[in-house]
Amino acid sequence: MKPTEREIAEGILFTDYYQLTMAQVYYRMGLHEKTVQFDHFFRGYPDYGIHKAGYCISAGLEWLLDWMHNAHFMADDIDYLRAQTTRTGSRVFDDDFLKWLSANGTFDGLTIYAIPEGRVVHPNVPLTVVIGPMIPAQLLETSLLNHLNYQTLIATKAARMERSGRGQVLIDFGLRRGQDKGANAAVRAALIGGADFTSNVGMSRVLGYPPKGTHAHSMVQAFMALGMGELGAFRAYADVYPDDCLLLVDTIDSLNSGIPNAITVFEELRRKGYEPVGIRLDSGDLAYLSIQAAKMLDEAGFPDTIIVLSNNLDEMVIWQIITQIREEAPRWDMDAEHIIKRLSYGVGTRLVTSWGEPALGGVYKLVAVCDNNEWIPAIKISESTDKTPNPGHKLAWRIYDKRGKATADLLSLEDEDPHTMDRISLHHHTDYAKCRALDRAEISEIEPLLVEIMHDGKLVYDLPTIEQMRARREADVERLDPGVRRLINPHIYHVSLTEKLWKVKRDLVATLSESSQ
Amino acid sequence: MKPTEREIAEGILFTDYYQLTMAQVYYRMGLHEKTVQFDHFFRGYPDYGIHKAGYCISAGLEWLLDWMHNAHFMADDIDYLRAQTTRTGSRVFDDDFLKWLSANGTFDGLTIYAIPEGRVVHPNVPLTVVIGPMIPAQLLETSLLNHLNYQTLIATKAARMERSGRGQVLIDFGLRRGQDKGANAAVRAALIGGADFTSNVGMSRVLGYPPKGTHAHSMVQAFMALGMGELGAFRAYADVYPDDCLLLVDTIDSLNSGIPNAITVFEELRRKGYEPVGIRLDSGDLAYLSIQAAKMLDEAGFPDTIIVLSNNLDEMVIWQIITQIREEAPRWDMDAEHIIKRLSYGVGTRLVTSWGEPALGGVYKLVAVCDNNEWIPAIKISESTDKTPNPGHKLAWRIYDKRGKATADLLSLEDEDPHTMDRISLHHHTDYAKCRALDRAEISEIEPLLVEIMHDGKLVYDLPTIEQMRARREADVERLDPGVRRLINPHIYHVSLTEKLWKVKRDLVATLSESSQ
Repeated sequence: MKPTEREIAEGILFTDYYQLTMAQVYYRMGLHEKTVQFDHFFRGYPDYGIHKAGYCISAGLEWLLDWMHNAHFMADDIDYLRAQTTRTGSRVFDDDFLKWLSANGTFDGLTIYAIPEGRVVHPNVPLTVVIGPMIPAQLLETSLLNHLNYQTLIATKAARMERSGRGQVLIDFGLRRGQDKGANAAVRAALIGGADFTSNVGMSRVLGYPPKGTHAHSMVQAFMALGMGELGAFRAYADVYPDDCLLLVDTIDSLNSGIPNAITVFEELRRKGYEPVGIRLDSGDLAYLSIQAAKMLDEAGFPDTIIVLSNNLDEMVIWQIITQIREEAPRWDMDAEHIIKRLSYGVGTRLVTSWGEPALGGVYKLVAVCDNNEWIPAIKISESTDKTPNPGHKLAWRIYDKRGKATADLLSLEDEDPHTMDRISLHHHTDYAKCRALDRAEISEIEPLLVEIMHDGKLVYDLPTIEQMRARREADVERLDPGVRRLINPHIYHVSLTEKLWKVKRDLVATLSESSQ
Repeated sequence: MKPTEREIAEGILFTDYYQLTMAQVYYRMGLHEKTVQFDHFFRGYPDYGIHKAGYCISAGLEWLLDWMHNAHFMADDIDYLRAQTTRTGSRVFDDDFLKWLSANGTFDGLTIYAIPEGRVVHPNVPLTVVIGPMIPAQLLETSLLNHLNYQTLIATKAARMERSGRGQVLIDFGLRRGQDKGANAAVRAALIGGADFTSNVGMSRVLGYPPKGTHAHSMVQAFMALGMGELGAFRAYADVYPDDCLLLVDTIDSLNSGIPNAITVFEELRRKGYEPVGIRLDSGDLAYLSIQAAKMLDEAGFPDTIIVLSNNLDEMVIWQIITQIREEAPRWDMDAEHIIKRLSYGVGTRLVTSWGEPALGGVYKLVAVCDNNEWIPAIKISESTDKTPNPGHKLAWRIYDKRGKATADLLSLEDEDPHTMDRISLHHHTDYAKCRALDRAEISEIEPLLVEIMHDGKLVYDLPTIEQMRARREADVERLDPGVRRLINPHIYHVSLTEKLWKVKRDLVATLSESSQ
């Protein structure tokens, strides 16, 4: 795509056509400036197949705000809309609407609440609440979902990998397997979620992280083709990077060629006064090879060199590698924990694609319309009750038990404050039979989750740094029950409605079901 | 991301760090201007789980060329590299190398051959061949894989959906579920592969297709909240778009509310002299609802209205819907074929993510180094022979049988021309025991696959339009054996080596295996 085309495709027209056709209907009906509320939320945790997330990590908000800041209807966007025709050749968009859109099609009137980036989030709790005039609030849908769905999906995947790897260094290698420039968004989300570095140079520069990497097989192949062999390639690399010497050892045969050659070069380096960094293994039985590599490196006097693993890693593969090292290392007279502590993980395809579940089903639903200064709940009655959104203007709270662990997220009406309740009824958001109650004495903390980000189009929030988001994520994950953090079959975290909100929803569904008979 | 940051992250630094560290090694060793060849290919068809592709559709080349045209080392990119430090604080990149990179880090010296976009392609046949000086050829890797892997993946998925839908209109709705701006690349690839339109306004504008869409549930909900009901929403929409009236009928209840209300509005439209377009179904049993909707629309006198289906559709779901309509329609006294012919498919998440296989395993492998005007094959010996790339400089051919169907892709040495062979030995590319022979008389056509795209950095190829790529794809898919086109368990298309190339590979593997003992 040419740069001029990119500007078009990533500006205000980065949206679905129906947002614009609906806008004209609202305009024609005089509804375009009615204040409405949309909730953005996801309906279920990513389900990767045999494993499933028990929590997600919110991410993407700052990039959405950047997009909003720069997306405006330019004269040529309006010209393009003017040129759209119906089946019979008449114009789709009339001049009065286009004139209005040109002057008012901005996000300046919107107020946005959101759960900040890096926080643990759960299904059916609004991650983002958008309040404002009908047309801009509706127009924001596509871009909001695009920006928040993907980064939340990837931050979640990275958080799983980070925990599976027990905090060892995790490096994103996913650029070549992402969706075009979308791979850059993965880097940011991965860092928020738990990756420590990336091989992506541009994003490292933008986000202020040192880029990471070693060398490719091609370098060894080139030296081999030119008669200098793997050892020649390693020597050349060590000569240029004596302080940062990390060698990829599997081009020919890790145990019989790569590691012995690496050790030769490491010894040469040490004689020159340098300490080598380590090796990378990119194929084969990574657990077995890690043990053997550690043994060979130990015996050669390099017990502190690291071992970077890569090749289709994800949280399950990392878990398997660690389990296998624990089982096998003693048979080789090796200390499993010492091996595990020297591992780093390079994660590419399965991070950037969220392997097993490549999209987060985030949705953006109209929940209330303000008419004559009164909020009227809006609802969609679909086949399944679990798809019926929670209506109206509401607040979201997180409740911590006496241990300090998060025990439930609670949605309430706007005029409710659980701090004032002696006993909190936690109603299941779809199953009317399910209810649990908590006494105030069982609760250590009640925390509001939604923060005002934008007020009437003005940013009223200090955007946190990536490091602050990482700290937030770490603290939130720490406060989850271990069962919720489990990789497979996690405990279902409770997302509940207060008694009052639950009654509003029940009555609304009943009324609408009757009226649609 | 801010626009200035976007420029950084999408420019020449849209790459992995190791490309740059390797580049300095090549520079230091005086290998930076050695001519080398890299092959880009994928090793296996996308495997979606219970179904699998039997062919892929090549896509992404033009966007790669656009990127190459615009990616240059800017002064601040060089400054950034100058600031990189090793563990001990010394500089990673030296001034002489950075000076060279600044002046020579362009793609001006590269010659590129490729299989054009829209063509059917198979594993282990180079989709792209890059020949030129070591550093730029290596530097191109990450961006090339990023641009070509994803669009090829999506064009392939779209081609499957298009065939599954038996050529009915296919509309991309995937923008909200793609990877950030990468979702725009999906649109282009989907159109090449078989989608007819997209809801993405910006990309419609860039690519010159009319954007498509109707309205969302939110519009109906808003009218309901304001007391105007679903019928009021439909009326408003029909008033504004009497020529393009397509109504989403499942906000309340498709059969008991949405379709009856749509018919009321359609009748009103007709009285005013307009013909309605149709309805969209977005939930429930889409096959059953399609039959019932068709019946109701027929009985109301609207047998020509279309029915757009959406909601997590992919090739398997579409196939199931058609199968179910065929089975169930007669029981309702309905003509199944007439129903199937009025369907259109809106495909979102499962198209843009290539659900089931969200990444194409395309790789970029050094296959030859030119030394003293002689090409020396380069090879990587990994554990499995099927991962050993085909060495050296070679040509790719497609062989058509007497029926005009493609029967095999053939890789040959550069000095071979299968046109001159009376009998062609087709050696399996990894299984040494497998060989098949074709007499010249059994062959109707032998077609070279790789086209010169760029010569010494100059474009020497007329870039086809999307429509030309679509025509190319249609013709290529038509010339596949029906067994190869099958959705489940497709026939394995033959990718073969000539006798001479096969011997070169065998000898090379043997020599290298020995030397690595």
